[in-house]
Amino acid sequence: MPIITLLTDFGLRDHFAGAMKGVMLDLNPELTLVDITHLIPRHDIFTGAFTLEQAWSCFPAGTVHLAVVDPGVGTGRRAVAASAGGHFFIAPDNGLLTYVAGREDFAAFEITAEHYFRKPVSSTFHGRDIFAPIAAWITRGIPLHQLGPSLRDPVRLNVPVPKKVKEGLIQAAVLAVDQFGNLVTNLRPADVPRTARVILSGQREIKSFRSTYEEGAPGEAFLIAGSTGFLEIAVKNGSAASLLGLKPGSPIGVVL
Amino acid sequence: MPIITLLTDFGLRDHFAGAMKGVMLDLNPELTLVDITHLIPRHDIFTGAFTLEQAWSCFPAGTVHLAVVDPGVGTGRRAVAASAGGHFFIAPDNGLLTYVAGREDFAAFEITAEHYFRKPVSSTFHGRDIFAPIAAWITRGIPLHQLGPSLRDPVRLNVPVPKKVKEGLIQAAVLAVDQFGNLVTNLRPADVPRTARVILSGQREIKSFRSTYEEGAPGEAFLIAGSTGFLEIAVKNGSAASLLGLKPGSPIGVVL
Amino acid sequence: MPIITLLTDFGLRDHFAGAMKGVMLDLNPELTLVDITHLIPRHDIFTGAFTLEQAWSCFPAGTVHLAVVDPGVGTGRRAVAASAGGHFFIAPDNGLLTYVAGREDFAAFEITAEHYFRKPVSSTFHGRDIFAPIAAWITRGIPLHQLGPSLRDPVRLNVPVPKKVKEGLIQAAVLAVDQFGNLVTNLRPADVPRTARVILSGQREIKSFRSTYEEGAPGEAFLIAGSTGFLEIAVKNGSAASLLGLKPGSPIGVVL
Repeated sequence: MPIITLLTDFGLRDHFAGAMKGVMLDLNPELTLVDITHLIPRHDIFTGAFTLEQAWSCFPAGTVHLAVVDPGVGTGRRAVAASAGGHFFIAPDNGLLTYVAGREDFAAFEITAEHYFRKPVSSTFHGRDIFAPIAAWITRGIPLHQLGPSLRDPVRLNVPVPKKVKEGLIQAAVLAVDQFGNLVTNLRPADVPRTARVILSGQREIKSFRSTYEEGAPGEAFLIAGSTGFLEIAVKNGSAASLLGLKPGSPIGVVL
Repeated sequence: MPIITLLTDFGLRDHFAGAMKGVMLDLNPELTLVDITHLIPRHDIFTGAFTLEQAWSCFPAGTVHLAVVDPGVGTGRRAVAASAGGHFFIAPDNGLLTYVAGREDFAAFEITAEHYFRKPVSSTFHGRDIFAPIAAWITRGIPLHQLGPSLRDPVRLNVPVPKKVKEGLIQAAVLAVDQFGNLVTNLRPADVPRTARVILSGQREIKSFRSTYEEGAPGEAFLIAGSTGFLEIAVKNGSAASLLGLKPGSPIGVVL
Repeated sequence: MPIITLLTDFGLRDHFAGAMKGVMLDLNPELTLVDITHLIPRHDIFTGAFTLEQAWSCFPAGTVHLAVVDPGVGTGRRAVAASAGGHFFIAPDNGLLTYVAGREDFAAFEITAEHYFRKPVSSTFHGRDIFAPIAAWITRGIPLHQLGPSLRDPVRLNVPVPKKVKEGLIQAAVLAVDQFGNLVTNLRPADVPRTARVILSGQREIKSFRSTYEEGAPGEAFLIAGSTGFLEIAVKNGSAASLLGLKPGSPIGVVL
């Protein structure tokens, strides 16, 4: 059974996600539909890209990932159908595919083949009228190159990477905050020795490394190797984001 | 694979939706279950009816739509199984099917065939004990007329329609507010010329028509042809509902 | 099609539930996945156990129930695979299976067979790396005893039961609060005659029994036989929890 995942900022209150699923099942009743999330913060393309990156590779090859965080819906922004790692990706061309677009086997096409769209095409809900039907058609075997011309310059967001500022000092950043308030940094655990100090704004420091959340002392912010593959800043039974006042993009220093 | 959609005000925290799904899969393990939403505001039958109307026709013919917003659960209010447009609908008879009941091919039956119910039938959770099993039995081929007698007078809510108050003035209303704060009116875009002015309470006016959300000026409330088929009032990156203090039922004037 | 249900405190915002589903579909693409809820309050093992108990038996025999509320993730706490009532249960061994563990046919095994895990195993997301793959392997026919040694002393939480304090007085408690604010007690309707008075802290009393929510007087807290099999305290169109200031664990007296 072909699988389509959904990731949007449409929320769970309205008919939006349900309408998209109906459109897809109408084209292919054998689909397995899986929600990644519909609670990406409104118009937050980077959080959408990061969340998609954390989820997609868990699925079997051949899965179609439908991602719609689309502040520019109805404008001239392009729509993209892509493949990478044996998976398929459908999204507005606004940076949602930033992570997968960095893969060597990434191939993208601009979606222009209007005969696959749901008619009439609204100017405010391309999730239902363009992206959902295209995702369903792919599961029916339509090859990507039939959807439109090759797209060689997909929009990619600038993902902050750690930089060596001077000897013994690395400048890093917060990439994401999960709903528990854990701060996902852009540092790899292997790059930060356990003797390092992590410096936050306001001259605050984090020095503790923990192996599990449970080991944290009450109220203590500590470093932990997260399941995302990145170093995270966490507080046991609490929110590091609230305690430290940090958010995606906040700078972090590492003194080696 | 037969499809059943779910639309309720049960929320996502408790076991309610899961229990309904278990009951249905127990009767028909081949089902594809799709949530429209479980976040209809508590007891808000009209919002349930409107949301159902926006979603159901996206699904393939033969889909069973299970809708439970049911303040009168356990009382003498009737339960209804209906067909329209090649789809099936199961709901309490309280107006949830207001929109589909207006279709020419609408046919309804009161659900009285207790041998299809889950026993014992609670007085507070007919979603699990009556509506879910009936929906599953329909996907197993039980015809609607075996569920009970024909129901000729289903409850229908009064849906506000635009009225010509005098020459050049139409009185309309807000039908719904989506979670972004976009206000769905009961006006069809074709009925409102671009030279018209939309008048709100407090002598406020909206004169701008936009083709996409992106075109809106910062903080400006504008009119846009929504994906619902109705004219919507929107604010780019903001909430028209909050900005204007409007909600479902709020009156709108149109000066032609 | 084999069914796996999911119950977690992971929320709906992040990639967590989606990643678990991807891992399971990668091992068994024929799965039907059903969310019970991902909104168990963070680390609230008892609410997880209660919610699971209300949902699991609605599903067909053979269903695998995957429950992850896991404050001790990564520590020495055991992982458990169990069977009861013809169903399967996968969870951390921290009390989540308290209710099913009380069944006569309950059999449990400690999950130690690392060759079934997703590698590398993180120390913070066993839902993805251990519990999800084990659930999927069970649907592929791996018997529980191949997952590890028999586990004879699973952790069980203390579930409050009504006690006769003296002649004519029973001490009971609130077990759970649903999202409408209905208070689920640990009293069975058959054990409380309609002439009884229910006493709350602060010398408040509840004397009304109602058969449906609709019958409640405005603002009145009343007793009702809930769909959970327990007596509930409810307020029509309101929240008994807010009105009465009660929560899980709050004591209740019953004067017979």
